[in-house]
Amino acid sequence: MAISYPQFIVSEKSPMEAKIIVPSSSSSASQASPSPPPPSSSMSPVVLTQDELKKIAAYKAVEYVESNMVIGLGTGSTAKHAVDRIAELLNQGKLRNIVGIPTSKKTYDQAVSLGIPLSDLNSHPAVDLSIDGADEVDPFLNLVKGRGGSLLREKMVESSSKKFVVIVDESKMVEHLGGSGLAMPVEVVPYGDLAVAKSLQALFEDSGCVAKRRTLDLDGKVPFITDNGNHIVELFFKKDIGDLNTASDKILRIPGVVEHGMFLGLATTVIVAGELGVRVENKS
Amino acid sequence: MAISYPQFIVSEKSPMEAKIIVPSSSSSASQASPSPPPPSSSMSPVVLTQDELKKIAAYKAVEYVESNMVIGLGTGSTAKHAVDRIAELLNQGKLRNIVGIPTSKKTYDQAVSLGIPLSDLNSHPAVDLSIDGADEVDPFLNLVKGRGGSLLREKMVESSSKKFVVIVDESKMVEHLGGSGLAMPVEVVPYGDLAVAKSLQALFEDSGCVAKRRTLDLDGKVPFITDNGNHIVELFFKKDIGDLNTASDKILRIPGVVEHGMFLGLATTVIVAGELGVRVENKS
Repeated sequence: MAISYPQFIVSEKSPMEAKIIVPSSSSSASQASPSPPPPSSSMSPVVLTQDELKKIAAYKAVEYVESNMVIGLGTGSTAKHAVDRIAELLNQGKLRNIVGIPTSKKTYDQAVSLGIPLSDLNSHPAVDLSIDGADEVDPFLNLVKGRGGSLLREKMVESSSKKFVVIVDESKMVEHLGGSGLAMPVEVVPYGDLAVAKSLQALFEDSGCVAKRRTLDLDGKVPFITDNGNHIVELFFKKDIGDLNTASDKILRIPGVVEHGMFLGLATTVIVAGELGVRVENKS
Repeated sequence: MAISYPQFIVSEKSPMEAKIIVPSSSSSASQASPSPPPPSSSMSPVVLTQDELKKIAAYKAVEYVESNMVIGLGTGSTAKHAVDRIAELLNQGKLRNIVGIPTSKKTYDQAVSLGIPLSDLNSHPAVDLSIDGADEVDPFLNLVKGRGGSLLREKMVESSSKKFVVIVDESKMVEHLGGSGLAMPVEVVPYGDLAVAKSLQALFEDSGCVAKRRTLDLDGKVPFITDNGNHIVELFFKKDIGDLNTASDKILRIPGVVEHGMFLGLATTVIVAGELGVRVENKS
């Protein structure tokens, strides 16, 4: 099944050739309407908001969804558009017999409200396709995910998927993971979380790492709690952390670490929406 | 500080030369009394129960405890004797200014009832000495721990310890980890636990691995819950699992795995109590 998003010329790995053709009215399109703006003969390019770019990437990703699939439903502001779109196609009868595996309680609630049939990883350990956003994407399609706090179930579902389509706007592309200067999250058990944060910071001392527990208050006393009842330690790097698989193993070996936000070698396709159009990068 | 257990000749790495000299009445010593049996001139050897051997190892381990130390307090039937003994020496004034870091809620309760001052890993991330039992010990002093379900906090505390003294009776010594045929426990998050169990079983297919979720009922419906709110998957092996560090990394890479029960390179001393005496093996 391929339901195209007609306003966009989609390029595969040649973003400079792609062009965006959208009516100027689309920049003020309401979020309440997940439908793409109607085709227009106007050729005047407009500046798109980040949320519109996210929606464009999400709609493109849903073209990969076929009837009878088990679909991993991602979490976050970009993935939300994909879940909306899947529900829309189900309601239109253009998709049938989909089973969704939500990657968070938030996505579960969204999918339930939209009427998408749901299951879980225990009942469906083999997932056909997952669609999710990312916080960073490097040139090898390695990701940082989980700034929204849902990295563990996302990684569980997406590592169980035959195909994993990542949807981002151009701002998420980085030269190396950690390169955005934003947090790389690590999910840790509550017991001894500050001791684990110290160990994590020491592990990446050479990269100028600073580790902070994610909190809900300014005083840093009320920890953020994940869907799994755990805490999040955020790592900030000043420099490249070197070989990512080595870094991953080092993090996972620290007792108290549950999972980290580096998704290495999992993405099979990354869809990037930018001002110059949509490009699709496939795992080589 | 060294408070010896006078009935036993303790050997270092030469178990065949050691002799046990105990009064025959000691085999019926009540568990309610943590004190060792009084010295006796009787030389007639007696058969000791497994619990008496555990107590002998535990008392020997507590000789390593000095005043002003931060002490990791293990969990299980052997470690319980060590905690009892530490409390006894504190009450006698032979130890002072000890801070205990319990490795489980059960040990916390025991230590509180005995009046041992306690703290946690966040407040005391550097531990001087930990004492704990083990389910298996291989010739390189690698361990399997956690059949009691407390492997995560045990590993967090014991990997933060300058010295880690393991106390076992002779029955725990194995040629290779998994060699006892009993379970090697893996702590996993509740979400998707059965899917994770499948992944773990597939990982060690070549070693004839069978993975089972630990449950509290015969029907396998009510999962065992750890102190951290997680579940336990038990791995049973028919064959050696090969290089242990490689196996450890493979397990930790599975999303949903929190920690496993292999303690590799952590023990600095293993005290083994057997019918022929107590022997002390130090990490080379």
